[in-house]
This record gives sequence, structure tokens and C-alpha cells, in this order.
Amino acid sequence: MTNRPFDLLNESVGKDVLVRLKGNMQIRGTLKAFDVHMNIVLENAEELTDEEKPKTKFGKIILRGDNILLISP
Amino acid sequence: MTNRPFDLLNESVGKDVLVRLKGNMQIRGTLKAFDVHMNIVLENAEELTDEEKPKTKFGKIILRGDNILLISP
Amino acid sequence: MTNRPFDLLNESVGKDVLVRLKGNMQIRGTLKAFDVHMNIVLENAEELTDEEKPKTKFGKIILRGDNILLISP
Amino acid sequence: MTNRPFDLLNESVGKDVLVRLKGNMQIRGTLKAFDVHMNIVLENAEELTDEEKPKTKFGKIILRGDNILLISP
Amino acid sequence: MTNRPFDLLNESVGKDVLVRLKGNMQIRGTLKAFDVHMNIVLENAEELTDEEKPKTKFGKIILRGDNILLISP
Amino acid sequence: MTNRPFDLLNESVGKDVLVRLKGNMQIRGTLKAFDVHMNIVLENAEELTDEEKPKTKFGKIILRGDNILLISP
Amino acid sequence: MTNRPFDLLNESVGKDVLVRLKGNMQIRGTLKAFDVHMNIVLENAEELTDEEKPKTKFGKIILRGDNILLISP
Repeated sequence: MTNRPFDLLNESVGKDVLVRLKGNMQIRGTLKAFDVHMNIVLENAEELTDEEKPKTKFGKIILRGDNILLISP
Repeated sequence: MTNRPFDLLNESVGKDVLVRLKGNMQIRGTLKAFDVHMNIVLENAEELTDEEKPKTKFGKIILRGDNILLISP
Repeated sequence: MTNRPFDLLNESVGKDVLVRLKGNMQIRGTLKAFDVHMNIVLENAEELTDEEKPKTKFGKIILRGDNILLISP
Repeated sequence: MTNRPFDLLNESVGKDVLVRLKGNMQIRGTLKAFDVHMNIVLENAEELTDEEKPKTKFGKIILRGDNILLISP
Repeated sequence: MTNRPFDLLNESVGKDVLVRLKGNMQIRGTLKAFDVHMNIVLENAEELTDEEKPKTKFGKIILRGDNILLISP
Repeated sequence: MTNRPFDLLNESVGKDVLVRLKGNMQIRGTLKAFDVHMNIVLENAEELTDEEKPKTKFGKIILRGDNILLISP
Repeated sequence: MTNRPFDLLNESVGKDVLVRLKGNMQIRGTLKAFDVHMNIVLENAEELTDEEKPKTKFGKIILRGDNILLISP
């Protein structure tokens, strides 16, 4: 098994990722950092509508790992 | 008892799986990796509609184990 | 107290069980394996509608223990 | 304090109990066993409608402790 | 700080308490016992409607601590 | 960093606080005590409607920390 | 990886942050303190409507980490 989930997160630092949270929220931004709880830091983050169009700009943002459904690098 | 849940996951690496998440999401893709929390990595992942038709293409994706309902290899 | 919940699971390996998950899902299949988190593996699994008629066929399936409401051997 | 919650469970083995689960489910059956997570085994279990009439017969059943709201011996 | 939450529970043994659970349920009864998980035992318990009128009589009842919102002695 | 969340709770003992719980409940009362799980005891507690008008009087009350969204001294 | 999620929180002490909680609540205020559970203290906190206009003023406030979706400095 070549790369485990946290290896993939690690390789994705500095790249753009799409994150879905519970409660139907989608955020896109540049992955800056994460920790063992899968809490993550994004830069140039923006919330997307259901149609994946920009809705709210956040700049830097911390997303709590518990509430993350998926992360797509 | 021949194979425990994580043995079956292990045997499924490299194969296509269907994953259902809380909040009624379905993802299909090739299982690349997993960890002890059942966080998983899929490749060529795509979200399916309720009728199991493709909806969103993700490429690589990390799914958080907490929110997984079922995995079908 | 003759048999604890995990003893009953153990006795049910190889038999058909009905499983209800959070979010109103019902799955029927042959219990192949389980672990201490009550994650279970079913074979010849199929999702049932509310009227307990077959809806989706899964073949092998891993169900995550956290989201299981009940298992009926 | 004469009997703690698990003492009462212990005294109720062999007796009929009513169990309410999250998601508005009610099950009645004979308590056969339980474990430290409050996972319980019922025999001659049946699901009740909101009006407490029988709806589905289960025979033996394992209920996962996490999702139990109340148990009434 | 005179009494911590579990001290207040301890003082309330033998008295009538009102308990609210997740999912909008209210139970009134005499507190008989509790444990470190805030699982509690009530006697002469009855479920109340939203207007706090009696709805279902339970006799003895075990309420699982996880799902308790508040206890009012 | 001058005061951590539990320091602020400690300073608030004896003062009126507003607490919001999951499921849209709001309680106001005098903070009497708390523990490491953020379980709290209020005195002269009353539930407020959405418009923050009094709805139900509780007297003493234990609120379970898990289900607390915010506490405002 | 330059700064992990808690480093970013630490750098944000004394600055204004926007916090989203489960159940669709948004709070803006000055970050005063936090702990390892991501419980946070805000000063001059106010709840925002969906259109991000002020709705309720709280002054000091403790937000429970469990229920936080995101924090944007």
C-alpha cells in the first residue's frame, strides 16, 4: 500500500484542495497545514455554492477535522 | 472467522469500491489506501447520484472514516 | 448471563442477518466477520426498502459499527 | 445509592424491557445480555409503532448501546 | 465553587427530577441512581408532552447519559 | 494568552450566563459550578424563547457539556 | 509545513475571527484564548445572520470546540 491518507495530505500541502464538510458546505483553497486530527489550514479559501461557484471569500481558514467528509487534492 | 473487516479492506486495495457516507453521498473509485480510522484514499473517484449515475469527478480523494456508512468492494 | 452481545455475533457468523443503520438504511446478508468496533462484513448483501423488499445488491460489504442501530440474526 | 444503572440492567436479565433508540425506534423484548458499552441482546424482540403496537418481529436482536436513549424494565 | 455537577446529582437522589433528552423527549421521575457517564435511573418515570402533561408511564427507567441535554432537580 | 476557556468559566461562577445548547435551546441562569467536561450547574435557570423571552423556569439545572454550543457570561 | 492549525490559532489571538458552528450559527469577535479542545474565547462577539449582518451581541463568549466547523482569522 503506497500512500496512506495522511501521506496524501502531506503531498498535497501547497496545492489546491476541495473540502466538503457536514451540513453541505464546500470550501476550496490552498492546503497550508494539517494535524493528526485532520484539522486543516487553507489559504485563499472560498466557500462554493452547490453549483461550485464562489460564494464567500475567507482568506486563511481553519477547518475542524471532525466535521470533514472528504478532501480532494 | 476468515477475514475481519480490515482484512477485506486490505484485499480490496487496487479494486473499485462503492462508498456511502452520512448525508446520503455515494462515491465510487479505486481503493488506494486506508488507515486504522478507516480513512480511505480513492483514485478516479466520482460522486454518484441516487440513481448511481456519475455526478462529480474528483480524481484522488480522502474520505474520513467517521462518516462512512458502508464500503462495498 | 449466558451470551453477551459479541458472543451472539460470533454465533451468527455464516448465518443471514438483518442490519439497520442510521439514516434509515436496512441491509440483509450473510455475516462473514466482525471486529471489536462492531464493524461487520456481509456477503450477498442487499439493501432493503422500507417494505423490506430488495433494492440494491452489494455482494460483499463492510458496515461501519458506529452507524449500526441493530443487528438481527 | 442502592443500584447503579448497570445493576438495574443486571436485575432485568430475563425480563421484558422496552428500548427506545435514536431515530424514534421502539423495541420490546426479553433482555438476555448486555456489555459495558450498553450493547444489549433481546429475545422475542419486536419493533413497536408510535402507538406501541407490534410492527416488525425480530426474534433475537443486538442493539448498539450508543444509539439507545432509554431502557425501561 | 461549592458543588460540582455530580455533587448536585448526588444530592438529588431520592428527589423528583425533570430530564430532557435529544430528540425533544422529556421525562420526569424520582432519581434513584447514576454513574460516571451520567447514565441515570428514574423511578415512577413518565414521559411528558411538550406542554409538560403526562404521556407515557414507564415505572423504572435507565436513561443513557450521552443523550441527556439537561437534568433539573 | 491571558485566560483560557476554563479560566473564564471559573471567573464567571456566581454571575449570570446565557447558554445555547444543540437543538436550538437557550438557557439563562446563575453559574454555580462546572467540571472538566464543561457540564455546568445553573441556579434560577430559565429557558428562553427565540426572542429571548422567558419560557420555562427550572430553578437548579445541570447542563451536559457535550451539547453546549456557547456560554456567554 | 510551516504552521499547523493550532499555530495559526495562536497567531490569531488578539485579532478578529469569524467562527461557524454546527446548526448554521456564525459568530464574529476578537479571539482572546483557546485550549487543546479548540474551545475558544471571543470578546466583543456578535452573532451574524446568514447575510453576515449583526444579530445578537454577546460580549465575552466561550465556544465549545466540538461544534466548531471553521475559524477564519
